Amino acid sequence: MPDFEADVLERVATDILVASGAADGRAREVARSLVLSNRMGHDSHGIMLLAYYMQLKNDGQLNLSGEWSIVKESEATALIDGNWVSGQIVAREAMGVAIDKSRQVGTASVGVYNLSHIGRVGEYTEWAASQGFVAIATFAGNAEKGNGVVAPYGGAKGLWSTNPIALAIPRPGVPFSFDFATSAIARGKASLAQKKGEQIPENTGLDKDGFPTRDPEKVLDGGALLPFGGHKGYGLSFAIEILAGFLIGAASPDAPEGDSAPGMFIIVIDPDRFRTPASFQNALDGLYEYVRSCPPAEGFQEVLVPGDPEHRRLMSSDSSTISIPDEVQADMDQIGHNLGIELIWE
Amino acid sequence: MPDFEADVLERVATDILVASGAADGRAREVARSLVLSNRMGHDSHGIMLLAYYMQLKNDGQLNLSGEWSIVKESEATALIDGNWVSGQIVAREAMGVAIDKSRQVGTASVGVYNLSHIGRVGEYTEWAASQGFVAIATFAGNAEKGNGVVAPYGGAKGLWSTNPIALAIPRPGVPFSFDFATSAIARGKASLAQKKGEQIPENTGLDKDGFPTRDPEKVLDGGALLPFGGHKGYGLSFAIEILAGFLIGAASPDAPEGDSAPGMFIIVIDPDRFRTPASFQNALDGLYEYVRSCPPAEGFQEVLVPGDPEHRRLMSSDSSTISIPDEVQADMDQIGHNLGIELIWE
Repeated sequence: MPDFEADVLERVATDILVASGAADGRAREVARSLVLSNRMGHDSHGIMLLAYYMQLKNDGQLNLSGEWSIVKESEATALIDGNWVSGQIVAREAMGVAIDKSRQVGTASVGVYNLSHIGRVGEYTEWAASQGFVAIATFAGNAEKGNGVVAPYGGAKGLWSTNPIALAIPRPGVPFSFDFATSAIARGKASLAQKKGEQIPENTGLDKDGFPTRDPEKVLDGGALLPFGGHKGYGLSFAIEILAGFLIGAASPDAPEGDSAPGMFIIVIDPDRFRTPASFQNALDGLYEYVRSCPPAEGFQEVLVPGDPEHRRLMSSDSSTISIPDEVQADMDQIGHNLGIELIWE
Repeated sequence: MPDFEADVLERVATDILVASGAADGRAREVARSLVLSNRMGHDSHGIMLLAYYMQLKNDGQLNLSGEWSIVKESEATALIDGNWVSGQIVAREAMGVAIDKSRQVGTASVGVYNLSHIGRVGEYTEWAASQGFVAIATFAGNAEKGNGVVAPYGGAKGLWSTNPIALAIPRPGVPFSFDFATSAIARGKASLAQKKGEQIPENTGLDKDGFPTRDPEKVLDGGALLPFGGHKGYGLSFAIEILAGFLIGAASPDAPEGDSAPGMFIIVIDPDRFRTPASFQNALDGLYEYVRSCPPAEGFQEVLVPGDPEHRRLMSSDSSTISIPDEVQADMDQIGHNLGIELIWE
């Protein structure tokens, strides 16, 4: 598993995207976003996604040169047609729309349909938090009927995607932030385990006949992931399927698969409408101290605040050096070859 | 464990509340709300709470005759001082404020501080859904520093309350609805297990020294509950502690314990701003059918939609007959005795 500098990976990813038809600025932005996930330790949301993006492009679900648009709006809502433009571009601009509206009236919700893959959902909520806003973002994936990844609680078959939810709250420096799949593990983590030849944890997957398995291959080959946290995680994943999928996904007559196209649902809140920023941050300082001083349970070194692991990884001196599995590198070289370019890995 | 008719229990509860100083209308409303939880099968949120309410009243956290007020508002936000008025009254009216604002601009968020116990959080989100609105409600409980109930992920000590979240989405008849504690089990379920002399499930509780236990007594005696779903549930419970507690809880200078007073945070969204009601409901019909037709996993009879178990219990012919543990009945008789009234259990 060779190591690469982050800027080398950004250039490689940019080259692939430009050769695929993206304008230079957008290609750089998508590449930056993907490599940021690698730098934060989330390889499953990093540049290994480029192979999947090429597939989305072939399927008409990634449009490297189009424009998104607002199709319907009110003071505190907007419905956006993403037009399959790179999800990283559309998600950030949709979050910007929600922030602007929230700045005006205090709260806003924004839905996006015809949305391509957006990478790590937490990137957009953290960006909103860096501007002083509380943000919640959910993403419902590409769940064609009969071809889902996550089983309902008590069910033997995958019904929909891993439907992640992210939430961030402003803090000076590092925001409070979580970003998790509502499946027991992310699909990307199963793909990565498969590539690395590893097993997935107990109680996370089913094979295609509905029996528990720890083999990622069996999960990905017609099997399913379980929801996290039993019926509670199932409730959350179902709600995300409705809000980020069914409430907004079929708003466009040309959305493929009708109701089941991927979409995003965002809620943004201006915390200053409730409490002054100084007083809020002061209170949070106390809360953080209270949490960090909790004695750790057996097997743990310390109690972390959501967002800590990613931030520490990003701040560590080696976060600009990223290990890429040989197979991922080979996949990317193949993509370059198909596009008629040679990737320069140094 | 004797059985009682729901209307007998409502009358008993009303009598206790009126004798404690509540106006008749409010007493009936709180009694109706508590007994509704019993009828839905959530005894931990039913009339056994009255003993706790008497304690709250003594602690100055239940004001049976006061008024709540809006202290700050904008087009899409409101901050409400609940003034310790019965939580069932304030929560419903706060939800009403959020619905009104959402009807005007499309989305709204409302925070309530100085909030007394509200019973089952899902009651308010389901009420919003019955009027055509998507609603999310979170409640951060009475977590005094050093006296929390739920441990953080990886921690050995309880830091805060069970911080429930409820979400409902409009459907003709029965809304989509979930309502769960972000602890592995609700505190009320541990209390009920204690009263019934039962054990709590594995991996849900810690004793006061931070070691795993299944004895509800040990959990309630200085121990802690674990968050549901590991670090994911922890992230959610922490976010609720911030939004429903710290963002709004200390807005009043007279909130007891400063930052850690109980509060509620509500988000309401008008789904019609995204999709027409007919088209949305049509799409949901398809989704419900898809979910219900999923083959059940081993050990399950069928796949349920969130809200099904409570609705079925409510619709069952015996939902108006409620079994009350002898100890709960004895507690209530004691309350009546202290108030100088005799409860009529028939």
